[in-house]
Amino acid sequence: MTTTTSVRLTAAIEVPESFVDAYVAVYKHLHAHPELSSQEFETAAYIEAHLAGLGIESFRCGVTGVVGILKNGDGPVIGFRADTDGLPIAEQTGLDYSSEATGTLPDGSTAPVMHGCGHDTHIASALALASLLSERRGLWSGTLVLIFQPGEETAYGARAMIDDGLWDRAPKPEVVLAQHVMPVGQGKLVIRDGHMASLADSWKITVHGQQAHGSQPEKSIDPIVAASAMVLRLQTIVSRELAPSTPAVVTVGTFHAGLKENIIPDSAEFTVNVRTPDEDTRTIVLAAIRRIISAEAAASAAPEPTITELNNFPRCYNDPASTSRVMQAFTADFGSEALTAAPLGMGSEDAGWLSDAIGVPGVFWAFGAFDPELFEGGASPAGNHSPFFAPDARAAVVGGTGAALSGVLAYLGRN
Amino acid sequence: MTTTTSVRLTAAIEVPESFVDAYVAVYKHLHAHPELSSQEFETAAYIEAHLAGLGIESFRCGVTGVVGILKNGDGPVIGFRADTDGLPIAEQTGLDYSSEATGTLPDGSTAPVMHGCGHDTHIASALALASLLSERRGLWSGTLVLIFQPGEETAYGARAMIDDGLWDRAPKPEVVLAQHVMPVGQGKLVIRDGHMASLADSWKITVHGQQAHGSQPEKSIDPIVAASAMVLRLQTIVSRELAPSTPAVVTVGTFHAGLKENIIPDSAEFTVNVRTPDEDTRTIVLAAIRRIISAEAAASAAPEPTITELNNFPRCYNDPASTSRVMQAFTADFGSEALTAAPLGMGSEDAGWLSDAIGVPGVFWAFGAFDPELFEGGASPAGNHSPFFAPDARAAVVGGTGAALSGVLAYLGRN
Amino acid sequence: MTTTTSVRLTAAIEVPESFVDAYVAVYKHLHAHPELSSQEFETAAYIEAHLAGLGIESFRCGVTGVVGILKNGDGPVIGFRADTDGLPIAEQTGLDYSSEATGTLPDGSTAPVMHGCGHDTHIASALALASLLSERRGLWSGTLVLIFQPGEETAYGARAMIDDGLWDRAPKPEVVLAQHVMPVGQGKLVIRDGHMASLADSWKITVHGQQAHGSQPEKSIDPIVAASAMVLRLQTIVSRELAPSTPAVVTVGTFHAGLKENIIPDSAEFTVNVRTPDEDTRTIVLAAIRRIISAEAAASAAPEPTITELNNFPRCYNDPASTSRVMQAFTADFGSEALTAAPLGMGSEDAGWLSDAIGVPGVFWAFGAFDPELFEGGASPAGNHSPFFAPDARAAVVGGTGAALSGVLAYLGRN
Amino acid sequence: MTTTTSVRLTAAIEVPESFVDAYVAVYKHLHAHPELSSQEFETAAYIEAHLAGLGIESFRCGVTGVVGILKNGDGPVIGFRADTDGLPIAEQTGLDYSSEATGTLPDGSTAPVMHGCGHDTHIASALALASLLSERRGLWSGTLVLIFQPGEETAYGARAMIDDGLWDRAPKPEVVLAQHVMPVGQGKLVIRDGHMASLADSWKITVHGQQAHGSQPEKSIDPIVAASAMVLRLQTIVSRELAPSTPAVVTVGTFHAGLKENIIPDSAEFTVNVRTPDEDTRTIVLAAIRRIISAEAAASAAPEPTITELNNFPRCYNDPASTSRVMQAFTADFGSEALTAAPLGMGSEDAGWLSDAIGVPGVFWAFGAFDPELFEGGASPAGNHSPFFAPDARAAVVGGTGAALSGVLAYLGRN
Repeated sequence: MTTTTSVRLTAAIEVPESFVDAYVAVYKHLHAHPELSSQEFETAAYIEAHLAGLGIESFRCGVTGVVGILKNGDGPVIGFRADTDGLPIAEQTGLDYSSEATGTLPDGSTAPVMHGCGHDTHIASALALASLLSERRGLWSGTLVLIFQPGEETAYGARAMIDDGLWDRAPKPEVVLAQHVMPVGQGKLVIRDGHMASLADSWKITVHGQQAHGSQPEKSIDPIVAASAMVLRLQTIVSRELAPSTPAVVTVGTFHAGLKENIIPDSAEFTVNVRTPDEDTRTIVLAAIRRIISAEAAASAAPEPTITELNNFPRCYNDPASTSRVMQAFTADFGSEALTAAPLGMGSEDAGWLSDAIGVPGVFWAFGAFDPELFEGGASPAGNHSPFFAPDARAAVVGGTGAALSGVLAYLGRN
Repeated sequence: MTTTTSVRLTAAIEVPESFVDAYVAVYKHLHAHPELSSQEFETAAYIEAHLAGLGIESFRCGVTGVVGILKNGDGPVIGFRADTDGLPIAEQTGLDYSSEATGTLPDGSTAPVMHGCGHDTHIASALALASLLSERRGLWSGTLVLIFQPGEETAYGARAMIDDGLWDRAPKPEVVLAQHVMPVGQGKLVIRDGHMASLADSWKITVHGQQAHGSQPEKSIDPIVAASAMVLRLQTIVSRELAPSTPAVVTVGTFHAGLKENIIPDSAEFTVNVRTPDEDTRTIVLAAIRRIISAEAAASAAPEPTITELNNFPRCYNDPASTSRVMQAFTADFGSEALTAAPLGMGSEDAGWLSDAIGVPGVFWAFGAFDPELFEGGASPAGNHSPFFAPDARAAVVGGTGAALSGVLAYLGRN
Repeated sequence: MTTTTSVRLTAAIEVPESFVDAYVAVYKHLHAHPELSSQEFETAAYIEAHLAGLGIESFRCGVTGVVGILKNGDGPVIGFRADTDGLPIAEQTGLDYSSEATGTLPDGSTAPVMHGCGHDTHIASALALASLLSERRGLWSGTLVLIFQPGEETAYGARAMIDDGLWDRAPKPEVVLAQHVMPVGQGKLVIRDGHMASLADSWKITVHGQQAHGSQPEKSIDPIVAASAMVLRLQTIVSRELAPSTPAVVTVGTFHAGLKENIIPDSAEFTVNVRTPDEDTRTIVLAAIRRIISAEAAASAAPEPTITELNNFPRCYNDPASTSRVMQAFTADFGSEALTAAPLGMGSEDAGWLSDAIGVPGVFWAFGAFDPELFEGGASPAGNHSPFFAPDARAAVVGGTGAALSGVLAYLGRN
Repeated sequence: MTTTTSVRLTAAIEVPESFVDAYVAVYKHLHAHPELSSQEFETAAYIEAHLAGLGIESFRCGVTGVVGILKNGDGPVIGFRADTDGLPIAEQTGLDYSSEATGTLPDGSTAPVMHGCGHDTHIASALALASLLSERRGLWSGTLVLIFQPGEETAYGARAMIDDGLWDRAPKPEVVLAQHVMPVGQGKLVIRDGHMASLADSWKITVHGQQAHGSQPEKSIDPIVAASAMVLRLQTIVSRELAPSTPAVVTVGTFHAGLKENIIPDSAEFTVNVRTPDEDTRTIVLAAIRRIISAEAAASAAPEPTITELNNFPRCYNDPASTSRVMQAFTADFGSEALTAAPLGMGSEDAGWLSDAIGVPGVFWAFGAFDPELFEGGASPAGNHSPFFAPDARAAVVGGTGAALSGVLAYLGRN
């Protein structure tokens, strides 16, 4: 009677349709209520309440981080991390559970907020995983440390949790797993050993000029002209200073200067976001940025600009042996055709801090959360960080929970 | 007994020291309470109360403009205009009557406000003029229309008053006089016939790009790179498209784009402020700006940018015959050595609208408001629009009121 | 007695020291007498004379190309190509057989010439191959078409030979082999299947301005400013329009404008050299170049620039089955440790035309020509196209001839 | 009978039509045979021969300069200078006496040559002046030093003549007069006291990069990108560092780099030509150029560029008292309506060296050499340095000789 309403999450595990419906509702709630990095107060409260409802003990860590401890007899301890923050993007998906939330940016201004990177799928999947494992205790043994980490987008949260005593307060795991949603079909998994993401660094550059009336440029040092020259010159790092085969990005994401059109302002501020594949390239690129910024200021007879480091994302390195173990589980659960060995992505991740901080391996993978039929037709849905990014709610829950289960049971499964 | 405490304003007119003290206090009050363009509500109320105290009837015009009508028998009608708005500058003069005011910018953000252009000296002088002429009726006959005009900095106020029926509601004058403070010594006057100020145009340019994650420039059209290229290319208008002897300025005063360092934004906005000496040059420069902006967008494969006109300042033309009349009065009152025939300034003024709107001549001059001894030592005080701009309060009142009296009595004086 | 003076070229083939000495002398002669692309007249005569001395018939093809036909009974026909042109570089190696040659560039000016890309090693190795195979007929059977191709650096020669009837006049081969020297140790071989080199396109851009005296920029359209803006904007193709993982290069190699410092010239010319990994990227990059050049001209109010295609290098695609055959031979002759599967190089090659023109597979590999001990010490000798590029003469002959023999006998070998 | 065939040169002096015809022929010969700066060998010989034919003694000075001494009794000594060099411009006037001459540029290349600045009119007028004064001795007394100066365009000749002992070998004058043709109507004269022309400086900038193959930008320091950035940044000197009312020009007249499109060259060379109205502005602009060039090299991690001074033009200052004397003569001879007080031109002149070197005053004026009716129709003929610059031959001779006579006789005239 009910067979048609059960859903297969992994090769061995099915859940009733109602289970999926429940977490689709969780997902939609989270999607409609995103919060900016380090401001995930309601999200944290929601997670805590949900874990409490499942009878899972938890504690706050890193202000808006939540750690749930799920024990089931002897066995290994492993960590599973879900990040929880949204982005300052004005959602344009048109979904009926679209976000209308706003948040406060570091500069005090108000911005729209959207789960534009899909961290809502991570939370919903991790809660569904917690629910299922807390019910079906026969499937596994050991300890699962559920890490609901804030502030991933700002590379702040993983370090904040570690600094707040994460690994003193939670059992120390032998591996930390983490996953991310991607705009591929549900059922697809992207994983390979080695570097899974770029190193990333973000700097704020303050160009100091000299204010004057717009009609008297000769009394000014024009910081907008200087900063514009910097923006153009920074393009030459990728085009001229790196080998064509070295994948790196130097993006200027913000540029702010001036209050009034007829006053040459006394400063300009811009931010630069850098992605590099390895430490050597990182060193070359960061040095080139410093050199160019300093020289272009000199070209304008401006003082040395001020450089403020905003964040830096560490390596996101998949330990080969651990990755192999997870990939075997994935292959058994989803078939080898489900797996893709993606090239190095230019995205960044701070999950690596969680494992690197205690010297244990980490494994990071991506899962699909879109209708597979979409891709057969050749469509290319909007990707992460787009105002149109719209995972399919059901595909996100099924895909994310299935992958999480498969990965976690590769370590904790009773077989 | 009291001779030492009287102050000479013009060759023929002296006032007691207490009169000057009173308007120094008015000036300091105004200086401490500046308001942004079109928000001069408290300033307008202050002016109205002061005029009422002098027994001069007034009416509101252009929301925050005030028009006072001072009649004294038969005779010509002339206009005298004082502009009233402050600037979004954080005062750094260290004066004990420094401004701590803030205001709301068009984008909703809060900004410090300062009488950085010295319009407070204009108001104080005009009120002192009104006070003196309402007391000493034997000196003159005719009608003086006192125009306290808001929104000069945005080229908004003169037109707003005209649109609000200024010349239907006030007697139509045969000439409109206006004056401006300059960083020269008290007693100095700058005047010549012809163009006294530049034509000025301000535009807001919105560069439309395509948003993408900072790591995926290939999915973006980067509006910050496009706008930076525009800023640099705009420099070539003055350097390459105009004759070296043509005085013109193209200033980019603001540049704003992006919320987050790792998201390439979908647009960038900048404002451009243009000063040109005549209509022909204006046509050339504005066309070049349009051409460059359009082409640089095309170079980025971006759509046509949106250009919004923010304001345009008209000519500020000193009618030769009227200017000659005022200069004769100045020479008689202050000596020929007081007058300087300044070169065309690059500053702009919307006073021209007031006279051009009804086809009558206008005369515009500048007066000094600094201690003359300062300049003998070779010092060069901070100029208008500087956060350090600090006229001497007493010099401003004496210099501004004296010049106003001399100019007005050139038309209304009984002799 | 003579064992110490024999040299092993492949696993099975040794030659006396004197044979190597003879071709070291050939190499040094060629190195000292380089000729520019399409001007290889003396080189062609030298090759013809050498082949004639070996009793091998040859014919001219593509003006300065030489084709030698070496038949030895039944068996397959294969092509082996050596390119013959030098570069306009002033040699700075300090070798006693350095080039002092000069040549005439397309613009009529005189330039120094150097075998800076090492084509002299290709010719010497091919002649040594011819000598050995014409002597040791027992080793092989079939037909070897030796293609001494001019004008590789300008992507001119392969097509010129095909256009001159190469495959009508020579037996049609079943595969075309080609090799290139690299700055790695003698004994090393670089080969893999798929794309071995970039597609390359070179364009000459003529920016049309308007001449004027240097003091009258307003009467000019300044082509140097426009072209400089183009150069900077072209940098954004690689930095902003391609995925970071897409290896591509846009190089402006020349820029020439103006005769006199005080005359704004009426045009500027620059050349752009583009490397792309595949046809799709090529299409994107070439379209972006056209777009940027057109738009920057428009920004200057200049007419549409003229684009002249200088050359385009085709794909250099290693057919997998054929490559596998050659790699097996290399492994047998030199050991598996000798082989490196290099990443896609950004260099370009027109050898692909020779095989693609008749629809047969091509195989292209690189060989080392430097003392291997150099690299153990961590040294990094100057690379191809450097004025300091200096292969070891003996290593070049032994390495190049050995690789050629091994590759050719993979098809023609009697075993 | 002959009245219709006499031509009036000044109020008091007429010549027969045949005199004019003779110097029109001289002019056309000179126009058809221009020589580049410092190469005026045939021009010098032609002048020497012509002076000899008039019985005027002369000597060579500064290699290709000629000095003629014309004495006529007692009286003052004055200098009159005519410059003699052509320009590397390909004439496009279509005149039947067009130049087909070529010359050798400093870099050894061949260029077309044209009297594009009209120095041929200066020579022809000076020779006509010499002819007339040597015949009509009753008109004047004193000594005229005729200075036929080479290398004006390169600011070389005046100093070369002084260095070669001009004022040791010729009588020392009390004033040095000089004139220049302008594209205004015949009969018009442009003169005022003070600065008549800009100071001018020309520099060659060598940007040192690092050569590499076009496919390996990471091994290069790209001097074309660096130099292009310099060209764009230099635009900001005029647009941002000078007051709008300061007339100055910074022109990059040449840019040369690279031999081959696929080799990033090791250097780039460009020339910059600067015009400034006074010494203070000159100091500011030259310092800004040095600063920008140095900084942009640093931005590219390139070594300090090499700056070579090519030439510098001194002030061309019209002494007020002397100018007044010449203007009185002009007014008497041609009417006050003939005189225009031109604004400061951006052209440059090295005539100032000739007078400044010995501390005597100089007077410099311009004369018209076009059909006046042309301008009534509103036409605007091509100006100096245009390939289309075509003074009317007869108007040039009449206008130039008349102005020269009037100016010279202001000092030497007997009345």
